[in-house]
Amino acid sequence: MTLTTVRAGMVEPFHVMRILAEARRMEAQGIDIVHMEVGEPDFPSPAPIVAAGVEALRQGDTHYTPALGLPALREAIAAYYLERFDVGIPASRVVVTPGASGALQLMLTLLAEANSSVLLTDPGYPCNRNLVRLADAVPISVPVGPEEDFQLTPASVVSAWREDTRVVIVTTPSNPTGSVLSLAALGALQQTVRDEGGIFIVDEIYQGLTYDEPPTTALKLGPDVVVINSFSKYFGMTGWRLGWLVAPEPMIPALDKLAQNLYLAPSTPAQHAALAAFLPETMEILERRRAEFQRRRDYLADALEGLGFRLGYRPAGAFYLYADCSAFGQESDALARRLLTEAHVAVTPGRDFEQHAPAKHIRFAYTADIDRLREGIRRIKGLLAG
Amino acid sequence: MTLTTVRAGMVEPFHVMRILAEARRMEAQGIDIVHMEVGEPDFPSPAPIVAAGVEALRQGDTHYTPALGLPALREAIAAYYLERFDVGIPASRVVVTPGASGALQLMLTLLAEANSSVLLTDPGYPCNRNLVRLADAVPISVPVGPEEDFQLTPASVVSAWREDTRVVIVTTPSNPTGSVLSLAALGALQQTVRDEGGIFIVDEIYQGLTYDEPPTTALKLGPDVVVINSFSKYFGMTGWRLGWLVAPEPMIPALDKLAQNLYLAPSTPAQHAALAAFLPETMEILERRRAEFQRRRDYLADALEGLGFRLGYRPAGAFYLYADCSAFGQESDALARRLLTEAHVAVTPGRDFEQHAPAKHIRFAYTADIDRLREGIRRIKGLLAG
Repeated sequence: MTLTTVRAGMVEPFHVMRILAEARRMEAQGIDIVHMEVGEPDFPSPAPIVAAGVEALRQGDTHYTPALGLPALREAIAAYYLERFDVGIPASRVVVTPGASGALQLMLTLLAEANSSVLLTDPGYPCNRNLVRLADAVPISVPVGPEEDFQLTPASVVSAWREDTRVVIVTTPSNPTGSVLSLAALGALQQTVRDEGGIFIVDEIYQGLTYDEPPTTALKLGPDVVVINSFSKYFGMTGWRLGWLVAPEPMIPALDKLAQNLYLAPSTPAQHAALAAFLPETMEILERRRAEFQRRRDYLADALEGLGFRLGYRPAGAFYLYADCSAFGQESDALARRLLTEAHVAVTPGRDFEQHAPAKHIRFAYTADIDRLREGIRRIKGLLAG
Repeated sequence: MTLTTVRAGMVEPFHVMRILAEARRMEAQGIDIVHMEVGEPDFPSPAPIVAAGVEALRQGDTHYTPALGLPALREAIAAYYLERFDVGIPASRVVVTPGASGALQLMLTLLAEANSSVLLTDPGYPCNRNLVRLADAVPISVPVGPEEDFQLTPASVVSAWREDTRVVIVTTPSNPTGSVLSLAALGALQQTVRDEGGIFIVDEIYQGLTYDEPPTTALKLGPDVVVINSFSKYFGMTGWRLGWLVAPEPMIPALDKLAQNLYLAPSTPAQHAALAAFLPETMEILERRRAEFQRRRDYLADALEGLGFRLGYRPAGAFYLYADCSAFGQESDALARRLLTEAHVAVTPGRDFEQHAPAKHIRFAYTADIDRLREGIRRIKGLLAG
């Protein structure tokens, strides 16, 4: 029996999984671990969303929906763009998906053909690179650093462009850095991609979680941009596995066909629950949470810089800081290991996110309560002083 | 902007979608349609499953689970195999997935590489063929007819085998025919595939819905078979999008990595709800439903043969009959169209399922109440007599 296939070797393991497993082993021994590695908000799903889910189950809403999603939810998402972002898009361009993973996989199945390449930032979210590989296309990692906010620029896109390039993906706010592209910067990138004859995919799954400027959307740039979004992060619905995309109108029939084949339809209870995501009472909860993330960001960025970590860019969104640890004279892997085993603080080393300068960087997530973050900083300080 | 890609053209549309749309248009005009085209049980999710889902939501079980699924659910599935089918498999071989679609996609991402081929029956469930194509492998459609119960045989596998063949997929009970492979027939196929050096995937998503013999599982054949299953059909959880697979132990680490990248994890509320799927009170409900499906099957098979449709095989499971309509001197497409527009009965023509003899066959689903089936037969009789 053949067990080793090309695709089995195509994706790297997430190193954070080993760290998580080790952290759990330590916790099982009664050791208190401060978690700054977790990419999931600590808040539960907002009560109105849970109540809508319960109500849907009680009413027997457990049958298939259309592959593109519940019409009422597609309408609600379009209305949200209009009300919150002042951009009018028809609900027909909205495709509800099983998570943002499902959305990106759907788009890449359509666009990232064999013998084509896709430009992405390095560092970046590793699943995006891996989904490109699994679609049998080639991910081109464009090295980006703090000087350009860890984001692509028109110049870096032009310079990395190859004849077989079809797609450019940016993530804003970004994982692992939390950096945010302005609408102007997005517009310049979109123009560059358009000029090169490619398709621009903007991953906005952390949309809503911005702390220095109000959130925006690349949908303002015109009808030819593709946007990926999610109910996981800002809306606090991680485990429900629900996301969406907005695509140019001419792609919708092909996406419909592909969705029917890849996953039939997104989860019905999750879609009914998500109808409550845009209610004023939900938004009030979400904005309180955003304010709490902002307090954590402000605290943690200062505290890390105080300890000698360098940021050197504007971590304006999501719930991550990507810190340069080279001042401590250790590679990030070794430092992350010591932080866990000696200081009992779990973090994610750079090599889960980049091939460019992995040894220099550590990602700190501020998905834990601010008191726990303070405790983490106290422990890290102790270790570095020792 | 490039909108036509290779994969956009890779999958055929489901013709039944046009029929469904037309049926809905007619219903909107007040016309009563008998639905015999729907591949979804008419029963709601059993009450204990819904109650477990509600309880999970109330308890805040809305965060990510491990990519391979909730450990308790993997254990429950393994225990179900032991209790009901008398086959012991370790829970470590069970992978909980977003639907059987997610399970098959996960397996094919691992196994169906570019430049390889996969053997499937023709007729068969069209998504399976399409998932092979989307994985950039080549589906080899093996023509099968009523004389071999519309299933592969060792001889047809050997004869269709190519040098690049890696995988053989069978579905039992089958969609669109409802025919069932005995454990002996499965064993002979497994031995053939093993001899050829391939991997045998048995799609058991209609497991539990058999009417002539108790259900069985290909897992009895040894540790090298792959089984795909689902909570959708027998367990009545279609819209929840939850399935599972059982794979040989050495494949699990690669499947874990691929699952993390393709979809992160299956739905958390659905997994908690599914924990109630194996409870005695749920099984009692499910077995009552199975008896009802059996009554419908018995009625409909006789009634269709009475009208002049030919079956010629043993439709022993699922909720489909695949009937030869050549006695009526019309191609199945045209007949299906007349059944809808003139008799107001919706059915699925053969070309959604096969390239071999599509014009001869119509799929009748018995997912509607027996009184509605009687009404459908009355109308079909009237049309054919007219």
